Amino acid sequence: MRDYTADNITEAVVKEYASKTSDPRMQRIITSLITHMHAFVKDVELTEAEWFAGIQFLTDTGKMCDDKRQEFILLSDTLGVSMLVDALSHPKTGLGTESTVLGPFYVEDAPEQKNGSSIIRRDLSARPTLMRGKVTNAEGAPIAGARVDVWQTSANGLYDIQDKDAPEWNLRGRFTTEEDGSYALISETPVSYSIPTDGPVGRMLDATGRHGMRPAHVHFMLSADGYRPLTTHIFVKGDAYLDSDAVFATKDSLVADFKECEDATLAERYGLTTPFTLLEYDFGLMPAAHS
Amino acid sequence: MRDYTADNITEAVVKEYASKTSDPRMQRIITSLITHMHAFVKDVELTEAEWFAGIQFLTDTGKMCDDKRQEFILLSDTLGVSMLVDALSHPKTGLGTESTVLGPFYVEDAPEQKNGSSIIRRDLSARPTLMRGKVTNAEGAPIAGARVDVWQTSANGLYDIQDKDAPEWNLRGRFTTEEDGSYALISETPVSYSIPTDGPVGRMLDATGRHGMRPAHVHFMLSADGYRPLTTHIFVKGDAYLDSDAVFATKDSLVADFKECEDATLAERYGLTTPFTLLEYDFGLMPAAHS
Repeated sequence: MRDYTADNITEAVVKEYASKTSDPRMQRIITSLITHMHAFVKDVELTEAEWFAGIQFLTDTGKMCDDKRQEFILLSDTLGVSMLVDALSHPKTGLGTESTVLGPFYVEDAPEQKNGSSIIRRDLSARPTLMRGKVTNAEGAPIAGARVDVWQTSANGLYDIQDKDAPEWNLRGRFTTEEDGSYALISETPVSYSIPTDGPVGRMLDATGRHGMRPAHVHFMLSADGYRPLTTHIFVKGDAYLDSDAVFATKDSLVADFKECEDATLAERYGLTTPFTLLEYDFGLMPAAHS
Repeated sequence: MRDYTADNITEAVVKEYASKTSDPRMQRIITSLITHMHAFVKDVELTEAEWFAGIQFLTDTGKMCDDKRQEFILLSDTLGVSMLVDALSHPKTGLGTESTVLGPFYVEDAPEQKNGSSIIRRDLSARPTLMRGKVTNAEGAPIAGARVDVWQTSANGLYDIQDKDAPEWNLRGRFTTEEDGSYALISETPVSYSIPTDGPVGRMLDATGRHGMRPAHVHFMLSADGYRPLTTHIFVKGDAYLDSDAVFATKDSLVADFKECEDATLAERYGLTTPFTLLEYDFGLMPAAHS
């Protein structure tokens, strides 16, 4: 076929791909992708200059990615696409802990640590925060041996991989629940911070007048044999950005009290002095889907 | 706002951007982009694994781009997006030469050459091809001083920037029309070739069962004061891929006869021997829009 016009090209391109693609799932995805991309271009009557600006934006976004920075995840997050995928994959059921976005700063293979140990790998003289609780199934029965992967920003609002002065694996660690399902670790209380705005996503936020602030949170990723993996945050109650999260990720059930604690017995058990900050949060995992 | 669901997040994200974006054009584009991206995700019920594969695909596409390779343009071309933008910007009017895609291989600032000179910068012992014609306005009156930028693949199917053995600027050049609107240059007859398939776009074509072949063509980019710039190809009549161009760019009015020529007078004028190949093609430019 030749001489495609704005009126017939979408149908022709879809037909070309659909007729050649043998995998049904790929066929469904590529058909919908082409249809929506073309509909967007037609809807806004995209000019050649705007198309080229889009090409440059995507190229710059790719160039910004390296082993410590994932600008396309950041773009997906700031456009609400990540939370939409999360919502489709993990609709609210009222059972188990709710999920939220992975974000661009997860790093695999953080140090495996004993419960009660600290992930603070330098002394910032911040008040230590004890985070503890249980991992259970949806009925509240403890899950022993669950993996609990934790990561968060430091008091300067930076993850270790963004901060050349941070020691390796600062504020990252992996824990395993005890027989009673319990986990415990020492960290800092997270602060609200700006997503990195020195790249294409920052230019997009500037151009659209949005701020890049995220409410303070700790990332948790949990897994256990026979259960659905859970990727989530615990947000800090009272944070100013809970209702204007740059990546639309706040959920009420994930907001928790990071409270001042004077409990000397608890302090002694974890080698702390009073007062310290205490976060108590129990996670509920859902059974894995039967396959 | 908190606790976004698949049912309310699109409207909420659109509202957030629309309420903050002051530029009306940006507001229209970002609104439509978010709406269509979210609709695609919902339409196919994109899984987390597929979302992550998409992130990796886009990242790889960005990484593939350098000063000699533009993989995002290739992606746009192979999904028919480039031709759609072209069709919207240059609807068929019956006046002036039709446009087609720029493609990923244009390089600025090719050597400026005299009419009748050759852009073959190495001896491949291919039969030379004389390309000549006139640049006129829509009524056929000659346009003197029009810039004619030409680029094409060699007989091996590679553009100079893809071919480490090619001399710099091989088969690229810039010409300026004479007082009578005429241009003339010596080149090769282009061949059909595959777009580069060693990157993410190649993986997409593999996964969808499509070939990457393009019908043989010469790229032309024309401009003249007071006229709309024209980006187009001249395709070789009889090529096997005219009706299955990987980037949907063929137009009948741009298909021309590259014919064997025995004209000794013409051969002598351009320093050729008979037989040589002759392409005669006249370009018509449209007046620039009033701004």
